[in-house]
Amino acid sequence: KGYTFVVKKDVARWLVVLVTAVLTALVGCCIDITIESLSKFKYTWLKTYTDYGVEHGVLIIPYLLWVALNIGPTLVAGYLGSYVEPVAAGSGIPQVKCYLNGVKVPRVVRIKTLVSKAVGVTMSVLGGLAVGKEGPMIHSGAVIAAGVSQGKTTSFKYDFGIFEYFREDHEKRDFVSAGAAAGVAAAFGAPVGGVLFSLEEGASFWNQALTWRVFFGAMMSAFTLNLVLSTYNGVPGKLTYNGLLNFGKFEDLTYEIWEFIPFLLMGVMGGLLGALYNFINFKLTQLRMRYITRPWQKVAEAILVASTTASVAFLMIYGLHDCRKIEDEASRSDRYPIQMYCNDGEESAVAAIWFQTPEKSVRSLFHDPSKSFEWLTLSVFFGCYFLLACWTYGLGIPSGLFIPTLLCGAAWGRLTGKLMTLLFPGQSWLNEGKYALVGAGAMLGGVVRMTISLTVILMECVGNITFGLPLMIVLMVAKWVGDFFNEGLYDIHIQMQGVPIMAWDAPPLSNNIYASEVLNRPVTTLRTVEKVSRIVEILKSCTYNGFPVVDSIPTEEEARNFKSYGTLRGLILRSQLTVLLKHKVFNENAHVWESSKVDIRLFRLSYPRYFTLQEVDLTEEDLECTIDLRPFHNPSPYSVVSCTPLPRMFNLFRALGLRHLVVVNDSREVVGMVTRKDLVKYRVWKHRGQMGLEELVIYDNVA
Amino acid sequence: KGYTFVVKKDVARWLVVLVTAVLTALVGCCIDITIESLSKFKYTWLKTYTDYGVEHGVLIIPYLLWVALNIGPTLVAGYLGSYVEPVAAGSGIPQVKCYLNGVKVPRVVRIKTLVSKAVGVTMSVLGGLAVGKEGPMIHSGAVIAAGVSQGKTTSFKYDFGIFEYFREDHEKRDFVSAGAAAGVAAAFGAPVGGVLFSLEEGASFWNQALTWRVFFGAMMSAFTLNLVLSTYNGVPGKLTYNGLLNFGKFEDLTYEIWEFIPFLLMGVMGGLLGALYNFINFKLTQLRMRYITRPWQKVAEAILVASTTASVAFLMIYGLHDCRKIEDEASRSDRYPIQMYCNDGEESAVAAIWFQTPEKSVRSLFHDPSKSFEWLTLSVFFGCYFLLACWTYGLGIPSGLFIPTLLCGAAWGRLTGKLMTLLFPGQSWLNEGKYALVGAGAMLGGVVRMTISLTVILMECVGNITFGLPLMIVLMVAKWVGDFFNEGLYDIHIQMQGVPIMAWDAPPLSNNIYASEVLNRPVTTLRTVEKVSRIVEILKSCTYNGFPVVDSIPTEEEARNFKSYGTLRGLILRSQLTVLLKHKVFNENAHVWESSKVDIRLFRLSYPRYFTLQEVDLTEEDLECTIDLRPFHNPSPYSVVSCTPLPRMFNLFRALGLRHLVVVNDSREVVGMVTRKDLVKYRVWKHRGQMGLEELVIYDNVA
Repeated sequence: KGYTFVVKKDVARWLVVLVTAVLTALVGCCIDITIESLSKFKYTWLKTYTDYGVEHGVLIIPYLLWVALNIGPTLVAGYLGSYVEPVAAGSGIPQVKCYLNGVKVPRVVRIKTLVSKAVGVTMSVLGGLAVGKEGPMIHSGAVIAAGVSQGKTTSFKYDFGIFEYFREDHEKRDFVSAGAAAGVAAAFGAPVGGVLFSLEEGASFWNQALTWRVFFGAMMSAFTLNLVLSTYNGVPGKLTYNGLLNFGKFEDLTYEIWEFIPFLLMGVMGGLLGALYNFINFKLTQLRMRYITRPWQKVAEAILVASTTASVAFLMIYGLHDCRKIEDEASRSDRYPIQMYCNDGEESAVAAIWFQTPEKSVRSLFHDPSKSFEWLTLSVFFGCYFLLACWTYGLGIPSGLFIPTLLCGAAWGRLTGKLMTLLFPGQSWLNEGKYALVGAGAMLGGVVRMTISLTVILMECVGNITFGLPLMIVLMVAKWVGDFFNEGLYDIHIQMQGVPIMAWDAPPLSNNIYASEVLNRPVTTLRTVEKVSRIVEILKSCTYNGFPVVDSIPTEEEARNFKSYGTLRGLILRSQLTVLLKHKVFNENAHVWESSKVDIRLFRLSYPRYFTLQEVDLTEEDLECTIDLRPFHNPSPYSVVSCTPLPRMFNLFRALGLRHLVVVNDSREVVGMVTRKDLVKYRVWKHRGQMGLEELVIYDNVA
Repeated sequence: KGYTFVVKKDVARWLVVLVTAVLTALVGCCIDITIESLSKFKYTWLKTYTDYGVEHGVLIIPYLLWVALNIGPTLVAGYLGSYVEPVAAGSGIPQVKCYLNGVKVPRVVRIKTLVSKAVGVTMSVLGGLAVGKEGPMIHSGAVIAAGVSQGKTTSFKYDFGIFEYFREDHEKRDFVSAGAAAGVAAAFGAPVGGVLFSLEEGASFWNQALTWRVFFGAMMSAFTLNLVLSTYNGVPGKLTYNGLLNFGKFEDLTYEIWEFIPFLLMGVMGGLLGALYNFINFKLTQLRMRYITRPWQKVAEAILVASTTASVAFLMIYGLHDCRKIEDEASRSDRYPIQMYCNDGEESAVAAIWFQTPEKSVRSLFHDPSKSFEWLTLSVFFGCYFLLACWTYGLGIPSGLFIPTLLCGAAWGRLTGKLMTLLFPGQSWLNEGKYALVGAGAMLGGVVRMTISLTVILMECVGNITFGLPLMIVLMVAKWVGDFFNEGLYDIHIQMQGVPIMAWDAPPLSNNIYASEVLNRPVTTLRTVEKVSRIVEILKSCTYNGFPVVDSIPTEEEARNFKSYGTLRGLILRSQLTVLLKHKVFNENAHVWESSKVDIRLFRLSYPRYFTLQEVDLTEEDLECTIDLRPFHNPSPYSVVSCTPLPRMFNLFRALGLRHLVVVNDSREVVGMVTRKDLVKYRVWKHRGQMGLEELVIYDNVA
């Protein structure tokens, strides 16, 4: 096919990224516009009835209405996330992270997942739960990328017959990372942050051309989102990046050098609170894994949370007397000032936080003028929201983690700001909103423990490069403090599901663990020319995905004595074997298939869901045939000797994305096999100043 | 040593990065302040004499003064860059790029280089040449990082005895990449851009912890620079990032959607001009390599360029009549308005461009109000400066490329802006400065062909996230158009020096090139227990750096017949052998060294400049001894079989940073060796729609 094909493939790559970016942005727009319009409807209705209830002393009416309005959408979200597509529940970031890490979690990048996710998260937010729509946007971008790049959909069983040359793990993963970046760019209006996110979570091998493409996708996604949303909002062509999450414009984000001291303390606080959050959520998830396993139970829990949220909010508004003047700004169409028992011309500040989507509450806490909220309001709000958010994450509904965490952080950040104003009265640079921002960053950093990508995302959200250093320092301290107690929340959830995710580096001090200790034995090997019946038998009895091909297989006794399973000739994958069986590429009927040229397209055609053995019909006659594996196996698989230390193997797996490594002896005879799982189970833990190595239990339902 | 050591090492890493960042920023401050003060002196003097000359009709006096003031500093710069340390000449980015790529260019990270570079670039800028100080800043950061992390200096022959555990290639390279990032952050006030730069140029293997540290360093460097410079400029604590290169604040950088059309065209223009620039510079460098080889010739050429620059500038000021009112802004202390033959209250616009450092000229072109410059002024200036800049890059002086390229681009960008104003009169969003910025970006992109890092650097320089998309698109188009004709300037210079730099990917369609075609044969192997005399002989006669260790060496005839050189047991490096020889770790005197524990410290002690054979004193008796290599060699070197295709080997080298790969046959007998050079020589070229594979000639003076 030559160089023309190389160029064509390259152009196709750019095209796929462009289409992915635009589609991701459009999905983001749909979600945003739907939430915006429906929540306007919801809160207007609620306001009317609350005003009515206050006037007539029948507060039970707005309360019940609120509960009902929360339960309705939550039911839909729960149905989607528990019955339709369980993998769509949660934020999706752990799933994307696993996928990019090379773990094949089933159904993560299907269209059905995308639909459940997008509709589900819209409903979750409308249901008034402590969730955000940002994490799901990232997942959506990943699904779209996978779909577009493969040119076919498994959910709809339709094959467009395009981009067939991208149908392999490596290419698909590259596109998914571009999609995730586009998702971040759309969600936060942070193209650079998006690129860094997909690098931080996904990349093991930096590639300039790939990164540049990913960046292009992120930029185009942010641009498209902006174009559509600005047109929708009646200011077409106002091309300042917003993203779905809009922190609003900080007029003045300067800081004094000595303010690093409070910032540092806030970082510590964020780390502590984050660790607490993760701990509670960890315990809760353990309980959930034990007791809440059926879909209906999950839906019921979601409904319970939804009504509790409404009740807590209502109680707070009812019980706390915090009045403030209705500012000009508060008369904007997306605010619903509730008078409650305040004087005329005043509104309840508590209601002002609750009567909007969590995202807008964050913005209020960042930008409302000083003294907008009382101490008590903020404290109670923080306490309740912290627990609610903790309870909400992990429900069987699509739900993002960023916004609720930011909101908690903004609440205590603003409290800190109030404290600072008290300590240093009359200072012009003191600004409660700035401290709310720092608190939000610290809290988020303490929970998710992301580093550079989170810093840049926040920088781009704020639209201010100057404030990067304080944000970075706060995130750094929060991560250090948090890491002292436990892992980041995403990692906790990944570990609890027993997914073999690969760390960045080999565990320290693992130089004295050798291949000979890690390898799997005995090894099931195949001969270069193998009988069909034996292949079928092996595929039935083994769960391995890769089989070394050898010249001749030693007898069992020989193998026991010499600890070797034949001289290595190559490696063949389960998927290749099933394709060969399915198409009956046997030596005995070579005349049939030899003319039709068995080539790589045969294997691509069925990517990524190769046949199971049940789908292969073999007659008794077929079983007697033989297959010559030599034209199909990989003749130069990576191999190491038994005295290879763990870090060396780790680097091979990490940097090259290996899945199987053959361990050979000095004369290149197979002595064992090492897979991802064998390496991943060695994990280092560092908590409370201690450090050690542990072996992880890995479940078998993920490969 | 256990986990305590792991933690200690980790803390030390952060410390090293912090110190590096602060020192890099301080070097930046010194350069900046020196240039600022001395150029103020220079231009004040020049202005006085020019005014005098105009008044009295003796323009020869200021002219000669100008030439003298240019030649003086250039002499110093030329002396430093040609006599003292030739590797300090040029921008330093190609050298850093090579270093990070894994090529050991001699003396690149020595303190002597740093001093020559820092002083030299100050003098070059003062000499009025078309150079900038940004590239050298990046190099400086790299040198500082190497110095600090190794805890010793080779130039001063002093060993602090700290950080010994960082004395190995891999660690050192990580620190150098952090240093380069700190350099970028200081130079452009672009911490995120700095991280991306060191990833784009250096990383092959992304690592979260490393990147986070690099980012920390970049942030701290930008912060320190800012702190010092803001204090120096009398506004202490004004912590908005500036960097050495200050584009100034754009009040309003909005754009209309249809402006993408002119931006795209400017991208094409930038690509074309960049390709032309690179072509001229390529031809010029060829001439230089042939004719200007002696140091004195280099100095002479630099002086010629310096006086030509002064002459051209003087002729332009004298010949072009472009007067403008002296704006309030122009009376700032760093402007030197020259009246020439203009009316009272007016100044010569031509002189306004020339009577300042190139960096400030860029800022003038970006920010001076519309109609500040005439068509003719800009056109002539662009033509002259383009040629001057082209001539200057590659001289034997430390010189950065960014500023002159930006200046050329800003000139024609502003011309485009004037054209737009002519075509669409009276449009409020039309802003000559904006077009100057786009032109500058396009030109720089066309010359250096960097991608994501350059975009982010420019975004951060401008301090505006909104304008990222236009900048990205312009850079992308400029790169595509430029790549159609030739490579980026840095790559051209690297290739002309015959340095074996590794590309990102294996060349396309190289799947049919196998290890058997690439390998080096015959292989010089060592026995597991080898005679000293044979080792010495081999080290003398071979230039290889790695030797496979085998059980027994076949006779020459056997080797010829079976094409094998013994069963592979391990791999030992030249450096290890020399250390073993130097310390006489022979079997025969085991009683001497066995008690003193020969361990890794022995090898670290002499890193990175191991002994040459001349430094090893061996008696006749010693030559008869034997060395047991088994405790020292690497028992599990990476190996592949002869049928391994090129891309598979390429990935091993690229992702794992290999330098030697042993090719074995089916029974693990050595059949050949593959080194970096063997892979790198296959290069793909794509020009004018053609694409092909070529074999590169690699010189032997770099390893």
